Amino acid sequence: MAETLIRFGIIGCAEIARKVSRAITLAPNAHLYAVASRSVEKAAAFAKANNFPSDAKIYGSYESLLDDPLVDAVYVPLPTSLHVKWACLAAQKKKHILLEKPVGLNVAEFDEILRACEANGVQIMDGTMWMHNPRTQKMREFLSDKERFGELRTIHSTFTLAADEDFLKNDIRVKPDLDGLGALGDAGWYTIRATLWAADYELPKTVIALRGSVLNEAGVILACGASLHWEDGKVAVLHCSFLTHLTTFVTAIGTKGTLHVDDFIIPFTEKEASYTATSKAWFNELVTGWVPLPSQNTVFVDLPQEACMVREFARLVGNIKAHGAKPDQTWPTRSRKTQLVLDAIKTSIEKGFEPVEIAN
Amino acid sequence: MAETLIRFGIIGCAEIARKVSRAITLAPNAHLYAVASRSVEKAAAFAKANNFPSDAKIYGSYESLLDDPLVDAVYVPLPTSLHVKWACLAAQKKKHILLEKPVGLNVAEFDEILRACEANGVQIMDGTMWMHNPRTQKMREFLSDKERFGELRTIHSTFTLAADEDFLKNDIRVKPDLDGLGALGDAGWYTIRATLWAADYELPKTVIALRGSVLNEAGVILACGASLHWEDGKVAVLHCSFLTHLTTFVTAIGTKGTLHVDDFIIPFTEKEASYTATSKAWFNELVTGWVPLPSQNTVFVDLPQEACMVREFARLVGNIKAHGAKPDQTWPTRSRKTQLVLDAIKTSIEKGFEPVEIAN
Repeated sequence: MAETLIRFGIIGCAEIARKVSRAITLAPNAHLYAVASRSVEKAAAFAKANNFPSDAKIYGSYESLLDDPLVDAVYVPLPTSLHVKWACLAAQKKKHILLEKPVGLNVAEFDEILRACEANGVQIMDGTMWMHNPRTQKMREFLSDKERFGELRTIHSTFTLAADEDFLKNDIRVKPDLDGLGALGDAGWYTIRATLWAADYELPKTVIALRGSVLNEAGVILACGASLHWEDGKVAVLHCSFLTHLTTFVTAIGTKGTLHVDDFIIPFTEKEASYTATSKAWFNELVTGWVPLPSQNTVFVDLPQEACMVREFARLVGNIKAHGAKPDQTWPTRSRKTQLVLDAIKTSIEKGFEPVEIAN
Repeated sequence: MAETLIRFGIIGCAEIARKVSRAITLAPNAHLYAVASRSVEKAAAFAKANNFPSDAKIYGSYESLLDDPLVDAVYVPLPTSLHVKWACLAAQKKKHILLEKPVGLNVAEFDEILRACEANGVQIMDGTMWMHNPRTQKMREFLSDKERFGELRTIHSTFTLAADEDFLKNDIRVKPDLDGLGALGDAGWYTIRATLWAADYELPKTVIALRGSVLNEAGVILACGASLHWEDGKVAVLHCSFLTHLTTFVTAIGTKGTLHVDDFIIPFTEKEASYTATSKAWFNELVTGWVPLPSQNTVFVDLPQEACMVREFARLVGNIKAHGAKPDQTWPTRSRKTQLVLDAIKTSIEKGFEPVEIAN
């Protein structure tokens, strides 16, 4: 059975849309069909710069792209504050939605989008690319191995990047009316997702922001951290920042093993990705070394992780389009849980670092 | 000028004393001279099992070893609750002191020991071995490099180990009357030291224990964490546990660089030790990889770190003995700061995770 080719439209010419355009080109079941910007010139320039097919449709408004009956799915890289408007309209137009993260300014917004998707039978998935790297599956197998990893107890995850002066002044991620969740919505999203991923998507019971969060003059978060606490005693600590050097790690510690990855969001190189797994390690007899040593594991990546993401999304859309399947709930459920924890961290900061219970 | 050979006596036959006996043998300026236990048979068996010279002195009480005028320095691996008694007596007997960590049950105890050392002109140093690994100096150079690392902003440090049932029932580190500080005094000591080391020994202003600390029935800490906050906005998170798999890492993040080490306490192997340094890294143009990649740095270790420790301690003692130098204050100051932070974390746990100001 030949795979259904899904025709993608992109609404908005954000930087990240360049990478996703390439991913759509690379994914075997996706077709780069159309792009829309608020000006047709900008859309045409984007299409040209990003190797769109010569017959790609160029639209001067998002609405016109959504009105094209041949568009199966849209990629939405717009600022978070525009997600509800455009994702809901896309759903009403029966377009499946690949939505950039954070999915909403809060979970109520995302729920509005989810209702529109459900009412119109369309698939939604967020753009968290690393979830789709084949390495992620390998790491998941280690975490799920009761013999090698045991029971998860602790998770540390960090995503920091040193934004330059221009970013800190002008980027949409520091503007309250655009990506108003700042570093928490951008970098923090990944650390929350990594934490939930490691915990097999079991939500923590309580979230407490670490003191020392940094906000800009407009009140947008530039750096923050939090500890997350589960009923069974699991603890996670996460940290995100626009103010310190690029660092992206996850360390998950179980009763019998430890997973460490230094480049979980964007692997150091595209073609392969590594992680360290340590299992049942102890010190040697005189406590002068380790037995066994950690193992460095490298996974060959035949398709870039963002193309794997597009392929997975297009597969789900194809199931709906060609076989009448129902939209998959796994991915939107993960998005929603990530947003729930994000909301709780933000609330904890606003309440002066008080514990916040996660309401599901 | 030939180095002065320092004659060591060991009081107590703890497991860790085996490793330090070997270190004294290996250090070029140290001589393994005597051992004392509460029974002479035990001391003799220890000496035999640990390659003491055939003419080593064997004592059936700590007092008798301290009364031997040829002993220059003592190594004290006794439970923390015995530190004040035996360290103060050793000082009174003019013995220089290599003291296991944690140095006291609280900083008041350590101050009592410090007063005894000062009154008697003896050197004191704690047994934090990794401080003396040549790798530590290399990592320090990176952290101090304003061009490559920038300003320190965040520190993560963890030491967890999965103790077995016997340990959790019988080890002195779970007994309130012996090493009553539990995992915080044992594993936590290293993470606090690593944090202070990274911060160039600048004390944090505020310490807040993370919720979810685990205590045994006798009230001894089995697992805990804390965040540390400096006046200038630096933040550290540390975590220690007897209940999860062996994990020992430090990640220090500056404005321009990141240091990561996975085996800071006991290097994976004895002869060489590695760390990862990343400097001015950013994503490539399409955000599909890093430029530059992190650099893995390996340091050749010609003398095991614990022997480096003994050598450094014996050097300071030799300066006093042979040249009338004053006892060095650097090492005891570091010990005291470590204990101060440790006390604050313990107080925060006892106060229900309230912020505790560090009183210097």
